[in-house]
Amino acid sequence: MATVEMVEYEEAGPEVRAVYDEIMAKKDIDWVPNIWKAFGSHPPLLRDVWESLQETMKPGRLDPLTKEMIAIAVSVTNGCEYCIHSHVAQARKLGMDDEMLGEVMAVTGAFNRTNALANGYQVEVDPPIRNAAKG
Amino acid sequence: MATVEMVEYEEAGPEVRAVYDEIMAKKDIDWVPNIWKAFGSHPPLLRDVWESLQETMKPGRLDPLTKEMIAIAVSVTNGCEYCIHSHVAQARKLGMDDEMLGEVMAVTGAFNRTNALANGYQVEVDPPIRNAAKG
Amino acid sequence: MATVEMVEYEEAGPEVRAVYDEIMAKKDIDWVPNIWKAFGSHPPLLRDVWESLQETMKPGRLDPLTKEMIAIAVSVTNGCEYCIHSHVAQARKLGMDDEMLGEVMAVTGAFNRTNALANGYQVEVDPPIRNAAKG
Amino acid sequence: MATVEMVEYEEAGPEVRAVYDEIMAKKDIDWVPNIWKAFGSHPPLLRDVWESLQETMKPGRLDPLTKEMIAIAVSVTNGCEYCIHSHVAQARKLGMDDEMLGEVMAVTGAFNRTNALANGYQVEVDPPIRNAAKG
Amino acid sequence: MATVEMVEYEEAGPEVRAVYDEIMAKKDIDWVPNIWKAFGSHPPLLRDVWESLQETMKPGRLDPLTKEMIAIAVSVTNGCEYCIHSHVAQARKLGMDDEMLGEVMAVTGAFNRTNALANGYQVEVDPPIRNAAKG
Amino acid sequence: MATVEMVEYEEAGPEVRAVYDEIMAKKDIDWVPNIWKAFGSHPPLLRDVWESLQETMKPGRLDPLTKEMIAIAVSVTNGCEYCIHSHVAQARKLGMDDEMLGEVMAVTGAFNRTNALANGYQVEVDPPIRNAAKG
Repeated sequence: MATVEMVEYEEAGPEVRAVYDEIMAKKDIDWVPNIWKAFGSHPPLLRDVWESLQETMKPGRLDPLTKEMIAIAVSVTNGCEYCIHSHVAQARKLGMDDEMLGEVMAVTGAFNRTNALANGYQVEVDPPIRNAAKG
Repeated sequence: MATVEMVEYEEAGPEVRAVYDEIMAKKDIDWVPNIWKAFGSHPPLLRDVWESLQETMKPGRLDPLTKEMIAIAVSVTNGCEYCIHSHVAQARKLGMDDEMLGEVMAVTGAFNRTNALANGYQVEVDPPIRNAAKG
Repeated sequence: MATVEMVEYEEAGPEVRAVYDEIMAKKDIDWVPNIWKAFGSHPPLLRDVWESLQETMKPGRLDPLTKEMIAIAVSVTNGCEYCIHSHVAQARKLGMDDEMLGEVMAVTGAFNRTNALANGYQVEVDPPIRNAAKG
Repeated sequence: MATVEMVEYEEAGPEVRAVYDEIMAKKDIDWVPNIWKAFGSHPPLLRDVWESLQETMKPGRLDPLTKEMIAIAVSVTNGCEYCIHSHVAQARKLGMDDEMLGEVMAVTGAFNRTNALANGYQVEVDPPIRNAAKG
Repeated sequence: MATVEMVEYEEAGPEVRAVYDEIMAKKDIDWVPNIWKAFGSHPPLLRDVWESLQETMKPGRLDPLTKEMIAIAVSVTNGCEYCIHSHVAQARKLGMDDEMLGEVMAVTGAFNRTNALANGYQVEVDPPIRNAAKG
Repeated sequence: MATVEMVEYEEAGPEVRAVYDEIMAKKDIDWVPNIWKAFGSHPPLLRDVWESLQETMKPGRLDPLTKEMIAIAVSVTNGCEYCIHSHVAQARKLGMDDEMLGEVMAVTGAFNRTNALANGYQVEVDPPIRNAAKG
């Protein structure tokens, strides 16, 4: 159960309803997902997150599926239940099958392991790697 | 400074040296990165991590650059200094430029934000999203 | 379902019951919240956490509501379901409404994003900031 | 050392320079902090983070110092070195002394402990707390 | 609800079934736990995780119960519901009672607190500690 | 550089000095580690953390080395530089060698991986595991 009352479309003021309309149009659905109805309880947050995500997720040098797979990796690492379901669903819509999901998981799992190990041994960055990272 | 003495190639036993040789051959370098020299202090870990990573990072449905960008997203979310440098360096070698890195960062940052927000409002997964996630 | 049997008031020994009594008196409730009943399975932990929290949460330079909002921010960042509900409930009792919660969430979300970005780009602390932080 | 070349004011294009100018004006400083110079490598990220933060940090129901103390709590929980220094410096400028910082730390530390404990015992949210959280 | 269809024994191909057989034999159970049935959706991951865990968890300088208690501490710190239940169950089978679990929790909680505090104050490692850590 | 001025023994008031004396006596050293000198800037925190840790780390059902190895696992998972060095140093003093450290790391790394995977696939806890966890 959420920590706030979902703001339903019917009860929303015009500012919130305008964002809900954009969301439904963009996602081509006729209902408002719960996360946006939660943000509806604080209109400036709703507007800011929606606009910022539009900017971030628009087609760029990375294609939409790659962006969604990165979103999965982040959400898995943070253990966010809503986000994992949401981004896996979105990635499947963009063509990800179980094998591709398996590879995303394998990579995400592998580096959660090596991240811990590199931290654990407090490994210092090799100068050639440091230089190569800077580009 | 690391929490263990790096095991240099010259002082390594044959089991460790064999893995070091594989690493240098695979990466086409003539030196052993620090993380592997740290693992050299515990040969079973060195062997297991190396073999498991080979399995995980081999060409599959995701291309090597996509896998490295996912590795960056995980390492950034965990805040692992060594890993961030290492995977950014590797991704640059595979063709990632500042604009692509910028998009990886933008996506990684964005979902660290929304992960927190979805957790904060304890948003329940919408049934259609739950079903779509299952594939 | 918890990983331990809750220790109910009726079955608790005198040491545990004494802490339960303090908790109910302090919080002005006539029931023991689950977290304390879980700690009841290990009396030294129950006593230590209760006493330490009393010390930490007592009126100081920060008022109780500010302390609870910081508790929300920490619990959201860690994704702790029980803690988020508990601290949001407590903060509401102290006067936090949806708009204030929205601001807590907005700030918490924003800095989970910039934390990731600062880590991702491995930004070095500017010397003037370093000095100003030291006070 | 950062994973990207800082974009200095002198070499920045007009789009980046415009944001740098806003940042310096807003913060009343005559230099650009490193985090913004890192974001300068990807102008859309620079613009989006700056605008979103302006929205989030503007005076609201929470005063600026409270917002900065929440930012400290988040940054401490995530272990972000740059962010901790930056927000402690900013909070000190707004009047936070060592005793207030000590209370922010005490609260942040305390709930990192109880978050772990509530997760560890997998404590179920008490129905009265669940209801009270919803407001 | 999982983000993938569990692969049941009956519908599994020979590669997956072989690992399931090893798991049930090793654990002396006649059913396959959900985590392995989820990995069954991506056979290379199933094989790699199983083999790597066998290597990691085999009797060594640390006894099996100590290894499981470390697994609990990690899972609690990450807030992984499935993992906490799984490792607590396994540790109980190896002899851990509520008092021992209480000590694991107390230690895990305590250092989640001091980790936050050491990060928060950005404490520098004392040279004698740095040297002693290196061994 | 820390976010607070270290409080040296010479300049400390009697309340802080008393805790410093206890710390040096207990640890059998003639200097005060930095973390305690940072806490010295907020005496109630210094007193509370020291007393709580004494309670937590005293000999119990788990021996001191096991407690330190759990502390390492937590600190590694959180990526706390100071804490990792401090607990590895302490564990080495209690007899941990590189091979034992290697096993702690291997276990810590392994479950950071499986934690991510269990979260990623949103695996539901098997009822027999749930029951066995409860004891």
